[in-house]
Amino acid sequence: MGVQPTTERGRRTRERIVAAAAEVVAQKGALGASLDEVGERAAASRSQLYHYFDDKSDLLRAVAESTNEAVLGAQDDLFAGLGTWPGLVRWTDALVALQEERGGVGGCPIANLLGQLGERDDEIRAVLSDGFDRWEASIRAGLTAMVASGELRADADADWLAASTLASLQGGLILAQARRDPLPLRRALDGAIRLIATYRTTTKA
Amino acid sequence: MGVQPTTERGRRTRERIVAAAAEVVAQKGALGASLDEVGERAAASRSQLYHYFDDKSDLLRAVAESTNEAVLGAQDDLFAGLGTWPGLVRWTDALVALQEERGGVGGCPIANLLGQLGERDDEIRAVLSDGFDRWEASIRAGLTAMVASGELRADADADWLAASTLASLQGGLILAQARRDPLPLRRALDGAIRLIATYRTTTKA
Repeated sequence: MGVQPTTERGRRTRERIVAAAAEVVAQKGALGASLDEVGERAAASRSQLYHYFDDKSDLLRAVAESTNEAVLGAQDDLFAGLGTWPGLVRWTDALVALQEERGGVGGCPIANLLGQLGERDDEIRAVLSDGFDRWEASIRAGLTAMVASGELRADADADWLAASTLASLQGGLILAQARRDPLPLRRALDGAIRLIATYRTTTKA
Repeated sequence: MGVQPTTERGRRTRERIVAAAAEVVAQKGALGASLDEVGERAAASRSQLYHYFDDKSDLLRAVAESTNEAVLGAQDDLFAGLGTWPGLVRWTDALVALQEERGGVGGCPIANLLGQLGERDDEIRAVLSDGFDRWEASIRAGLTAMVASGELRADADADWLAASTLASLQGGLILAQARRDPLPLRRALDGAIRLIATYRTTTKA
């Protein structure tokens, strides 16, 4: 790994490089992105790039980390509500609304990087896997809270339901991306919600 | 589009080129694959390549088509059984067994191409979307047959359940790929099966 910045100015330079790299990767793909283009976009010299990052793979790992933060960070407020049924529904509605805005374009940024780099760079695969783990943990925490509050029955397996819900979300995003249509995501998340609803203690589903 | 072969010999040459291209794409990624490498692997000259394919994008579209055929063709026998409950379970077991063999490596070849090319080439995206459509149609046909036979209740929405099941499968494959572990796929498909089971007319689930 390259040098970690010790000054505020250094931290900002490193962040600027990672942000520029993320933009170039989004446009050209991870394999098509060049360090020259990243440097140009970040207004950073070659020596600055190599000060903070060993090589392209090291920079792409930083992009994967910042992608995790961006994707999960954008859901922070929604994650906080996952411990109640209305909060769970609100989270799925927000995910579908985002795909409606985008016309299904783009898919999940974490999954996109996985598709490009997962079989090529094991360290980056591990970073992205960690992003999914954190995502699943947030869902699981919400389901566990609903079991604790009695909103879900005690036999609801939060581990299984969280894994299954994240899979529905990821698969729904792929199908939405393929079809340029948010409907597959809505159907996938309706499936996840309906499954969880079979464990509700109230009859409203 | 390049020239379609009119002779058996021409058809075989074209197929050999597409097969070689699929291998190079699997190794180097769609963006990293070069026509020179494809030609070398297929023992085909540059002029043969350009006889059958206009350009790299045209060749990649043929790779996408052959990927659809390979992925769906491998499930043909299993699709045929989807009209009964044991057949549905057998299909999911086979999908999980394949990932157990592979240790989760590789993910879904259609989704991988989508992740690499979906935002770069709209014609290839449409080919891959068609692959998903056919996959979903096979699942839907099975569910519709189960409704017709009375194995599922008449209020089972086969369109929704097929879309939701394919999403579970795709998302489970991504998470299995990220974690190098077939468990997320098993959990995702168990979720899909459990949801469909809520529509069974018998009590065995």
